[in-house]
Amino acid sequence: MNDMSSPLVGIIMGSDSDLDIMSDAAKLLDEFGIAHEVRVVSAHRTPEEMASYAKESRDRGMTASETTLPVIAVPIKREGGGHEAFWSNIKMPPGVPLATMPENGARNAALLAVRILALADQQLYEAYSTYVHKQHDDVVAIDKQLQDDGWQTILKQ
Amino acid sequence: MNDMSSPLVGIIMGSDSDLDIMSDAAKLLDEFGIAHEVRVVSAHRTPEEMASYAKESRDRGMTASETTLPVIAVPIKREGGGHEAFWSNIKMPPGVPLATMPENGARNAALLAVRILALADQQLYEAYSTYVHKQHDDVVAIDKQLQDDGWQTILKQ
Amino acid sequence: MNDMSSPLVGIIMGSDSDLDIMSDAAKLLDEFGIAHEVRVVSAHRTPEEMASYAKESRDRGMTASETTLPVIAVPIKREGGGHEAFWSNIKMPPGVPLATMPENGARNAALLAVRILALADQQLYEAYSTYVHKQHDDVVAIDKQLQDDGWQTILKQ
Amino acid sequence: MNDMSSPLVGIIMGSDSDLDIMSDAAKLLDEFGIAHEVRVVSAHRTPEEMASYAKESRDRGMTASETTLPVIAVPIKREGGGHEAFWSNIKMPPGVPLATMPENGARNAALLAVRILALADQQLYEAYSTYVHKQHDDVVAIDKQLQDDGWQTILKQ
Amino acid sequence: MNDMSSPLVGIIMGSDSDLDIMSDAAKLLDEFGIAHEVRVVSAHRTPEEMASYAKESRDRGMTASETTLPVIAVPIKREGGGHEAFWSNIKMPPGVPLATMPENGARNAALLAVRILALADQQLYEAYSTYVHKQHDDVVAIDKQLQDDGWQTILKQ
Amino acid sequence: MNDMSSPLVGIIMGSDSDLDIMSDAAKLLDEFGIAHEVRVVSAHRTPEEMASYAKESRDRGMTASETTLPVIAVPIKREGGGHEAFWSNIKMPPGVPLATMPENGARNAALLAVRILALADQQLYEAYSTYVHKQHDDVVAIDKQLQDDGWQTILKQ
Amino acid sequence: MNDMSSPLVGIIMGSDSDLDIMSDAAKLLDEFGIAHEVRVVSAHRTPEEMASYAKESRDRGMTASETTLPVIAVPIKREGGGHEAFWSNIKMPPGVPLATMPENGARNAALLAVRILALADQQLYEAYSTYVHKQHDDVVAIDKQLQDDGWQTILKQ
Amino acid sequence: MNDMSSPLVGIIMGSDSDLDIMSDAAKLLDEFGIAHEVRVVSAHRTPEEMASYAKESRDRGMTASETTLPVIAVPIKREGGGHEAFWSNIKMPPGVPLATMPENGARNAALLAVRILALADQQLYEAYSTYVHKQHDDVVAIDKQLQDDGWQTILKQ
Repeated sequence: MNDMSSPLVGIIMGSDSDLDIMSDAAKLLDEFGIAHEVRVVSAHRTPEEMASYAKESRDRGMTASETTLPVIAVPIKREGGGHEAFWSNIKMPPGVPLATMPENGARNAALLAVRILALADQQLYEAYSTYVHKQHDDVVAIDKQLQDDGWQTILKQ
Repeated sequence: MNDMSSPLVGIIMGSDSDLDIMSDAAKLLDEFGIAHEVRVVSAHRTPEEMASYAKESRDRGMTASETTLPVIAVPIKREGGGHEAFWSNIKMPPGVPLATMPENGARNAALLAVRILALADQQLYEAYSTYVHKQHDDVVAIDKQLQDDGWQTILKQ
Repeated sequence: MNDMSSPLVGIIMGSDSDLDIMSDAAKLLDEFGIAHEVRVVSAHRTPEEMASYAKESRDRGMTASETTLPVIAVPIKREGGGHEAFWSNIKMPPGVPLATMPENGARNAALLAVRILALADQQLYEAYSTYVHKQHDDVVAIDKQLQDDGWQTILKQ
Repeated sequence: MNDMSSPLVGIIMGSDSDLDIMSDAAKLLDEFGIAHEVRVVSAHRTPEEMASYAKESRDRGMTASETTLPVIAVPIKREGGGHEAFWSNIKMPPGVPLATMPENGARNAALLAVRILALADQQLYEAYSTYVHKQHDDVVAIDKQLQDDGWQTILKQ
Repeated sequence: MNDMSSPLVGIIMGSDSDLDIMSDAAKLLDEFGIAHEVRVVSAHRTPEEMASYAKESRDRGMTASETTLPVIAVPIKREGGGHEAFWSNIKMPPGVPLATMPENGARNAALLAVRILALADQQLYEAYSTYVHKQHDDVVAIDKQLQDDGWQTILKQ
Repeated sequence: MNDMSSPLVGIIMGSDSDLDIMSDAAKLLDEFGIAHEVRVVSAHRTPEEMASYAKESRDRGMTASETTLPVIAVPIKREGGGHEAFWSNIKMPPGVPLATMPENGARNAALLAVRILALADQQLYEAYSTYVHKQHDDVVAIDKQLQDDGWQTILKQ
Repeated sequence: MNDMSSPLVGIIMGSDSDLDIMSDAAKLLDEFGIAHEVRVVSAHRTPEEMASYAKESRDRGMTASETTLPVIAVPIKREGGGHEAFWSNIKMPPGVPLATMPENGARNAALLAVRILALADQQLYEAYSTYVHKQHDDVVAIDKQLQDDGWQTILKQ
Repeated sequence: MNDMSSPLVGIIMGSDSDLDIMSDAAKLLDEFGIAHEVRVVSAHRTPEEMASYAKESRDRGMTASETTLPVIAVPIKREGGGHEAFWSNIKMPPGVPLATMPENGARNAALLAVRILALADQQLYEAYSTYVHKQHDDVVAIDKQLQDDGWQTILKQ
């Protein structure tokens, strides 16, 4: 669908320790053939790199913060940890719009990027429609299997 | 920027009692000259109208739920009320991306819509850049005033 | 619909200070012509009366706790107060089913009672269907008014 | 007690991954011989199937949402996950009564269904009374065992 | 009941700004004729006075912290404020027993003191029994009034 | 200190599944030689037994609910479970004093019982003072060990 | 104590709407004669000014973020608003130390700055010691007044 | 940098069971060659030792509570435990400044101590600047590695 050489979406993490969760976003963008890049840029440890990245991203066509492009936030929550990342994302002041996803919702973040890009990309729109129909059909199929085989059978699988 | 006759953004409420908060989104879209419509459609009380609205919105060019278009949620919180609307919005299951805003963040929701539409609309992009610069200059101006006049003067205003 | 002399629903409060909220349930049951009684019985201050009430309620045909009849709980929340009543209701141990409503949801509690009684009362079922259709039509009407008159007009009302 | 061919209770899940928890409801309804069906229907992925199911359920005699029948909600909570499902269920707007159970309270949900159906089913009422008495006797028995054998013995078992 | 000259209960506050809430405890102890004293002693601002108070309280017969006597905590919660005082009280480490009351529960704290003192004071026990019976009779009376006059009459009062 | 044949403290649980936590209270009372009994009595499943227990407990000399004796509550919290039991205990209405402990604070509950009983039992007071001094000396000893051996040594143990 | 021309403490706000709360910090620093400046600099709206401020602050002798100087955070909480600012401040990742104060704790923030500066400023240390003793004496005085006049008198004032 | 014989920072715990978390602070202070001591002193079990420690700490040059020196609090949170320690630390009353860290943030607490001591210690300032630059360079390096090798490679490591 897209020329992979120029990233349309930037997946930015403050630390590579978030890669286990955020790689789900990269995988889904791959499924849709959307060019993207994965970066470690920290507002706290590399603030200048973060600022440059934001400023240059429009010319390079990417989703980024401190920019005029749409930004989607995925709060990371670890087992036993608190909801601090979530509250931090949701508190943006008036004038700074940030699209917050559920905790660890990397895949949903990528799907929102797909929906945004599909507004002006007919081919991507069709690929996404196919994806949504498959989601629908999967639910219908499992419901049918439940009726046919009984829940005891499904639960054992 | 846009022909006002065809809405690019749909502002949907479950009840007209949310109009006091959601009208901020309509006002901001007006500032940017973005065609929009304000609707009362309830997932609980008019589920069929909600479904039709979602299905027909792409042809009509609008942001809506149960659709392939991007959806932005504004949880409504009333004085003394709880955070239920917020949690309900943030809990979307995998595969159903929803861009959640802070509670009562109607203006930020409209700004996110502006950012999304500006991806493919150079004129809107420039209008939004002007808006962001004005935000910046307003902060610089109030900081200068603080240095010049002292915080005691500002606080009294 | 019902003979008012024998209560089908019992509205029980621990204190008459909850009457401002719980009277909404009584009003809705009145709308549907469902016989009911309003009682102040306290698990903490009149435990014996509470136990007798529960035991005798089936013979008298009422909804009550410590009984085999369905029980619906409305947690009372006061301005500035906490969610303690809510958590207390929702924590029932396995084997003690309690239908919890949203905080102060007296009207919804009465509507659930209506739905339960309508299972075996065709006349009540029809009255409730009319009620649901009216809810639907009210939303459609306000949506139409919004399109016709603009949200500015509605907001001013 | 009931003819198993026509379901009196519908157990609906958004995904078959909830089957491990919700099957407790099916098991308890089996204990009481109450005809039921287990379905996967998703408000988000198969909204039309959900709507049809709700509309047709009364004729088929089942408990379902978007209907005039009583609806009982069981919020699913996973180890390490949050309370989002719970808040989402408890926030129903006025006019949409939903009987919320404790998190993962599938068994209690089934018991509430039993209590509702027992209102008009003497045989079921007697079966449920027996069940409640057994609960009572089990507590008395374990209390007696505690007095006879000492808590040290019970704890070791 | 008691000789008022020697305090049996010490009501200690960190600041006299809590007096509006804590004076309820003093009033109830007055009702029961229990000798008490009201003190402002701050663990943070007058730590030495706090320590002396605790150490000397047994000889003087009072309830106090850092002592071998029972201590009852009333977390103060102000309108718009948080639950910090509450959590601070409830977090006592193993080995430091503290009887926590509901927020602003000064009256309940005094009643617990009454129950403790009544263990070894037959006259106080009888006074407290009378108090409990009056609570019971008040509920029965309001319930009767509700049945006689209807809730509409009570609500208007 | 006490004649073991007549219980001074009653440890009551709604289910024997709480025995793993509540047995800590029994153990501590054993250390102090305070006669006690451990009972399973359920407000929900054996309400009549609960009421009888409360009423008869004064004559038998025990701590119990629905009584004029002091009652200490230990909210049980299980791994992965919520704080419902805690909120339920802390919400007692005015007039019903309940001494709430931290979650799973069975040992602290027993220590509070010791403090209460020690008010009128010089021998128990001396045993408890010894206990408190030992707590103090244990802390001083570990602090000394830390200075002597270094934290690295202590941490390895 | 200090030459007022060169600020030792910088009080930074994201918006001048926080001035009503943060001016308490300025007032307390004035009491101690500590040179300070009050600035509006926004991480979201004027990120470059924020970065320059942080970098230049050491040479100018001020407390600031993105710097090697100590930073103290005061989360702002408005009536009816949530705790988002608080959680956002407390979530700093490892390697970015931030001293968080209670919500709206501007005065405590200034006192912490005083304590830090007093480490190397004997005159300031003495002024602060006087302040602490006055706090102590105020508590002792109000306690004495309470004993002399009774709480009824104090409460009426 | 410092003479190790006289501690500049005191690391105080209520129990040696916190040593696994707090030893991170000791390790970081070691990295910077800052003299420190690790102590077990309990406000609840050894209140007199705590008071003496606070009073004598200035002469000995340490960070401590109930003192005029800066105090940094690290709330300890255990797997499955609650946030009580955190709320207890954050609730300090006006006039008692306490620098609260994130839960278990021992390393950040030590870094704040470093920043405070570096205000008057040029050598320590330079060591800390080197540390901050290393943090920055580590992020840049991992970002470069991510671009060069792909996230799949990094994730596998």
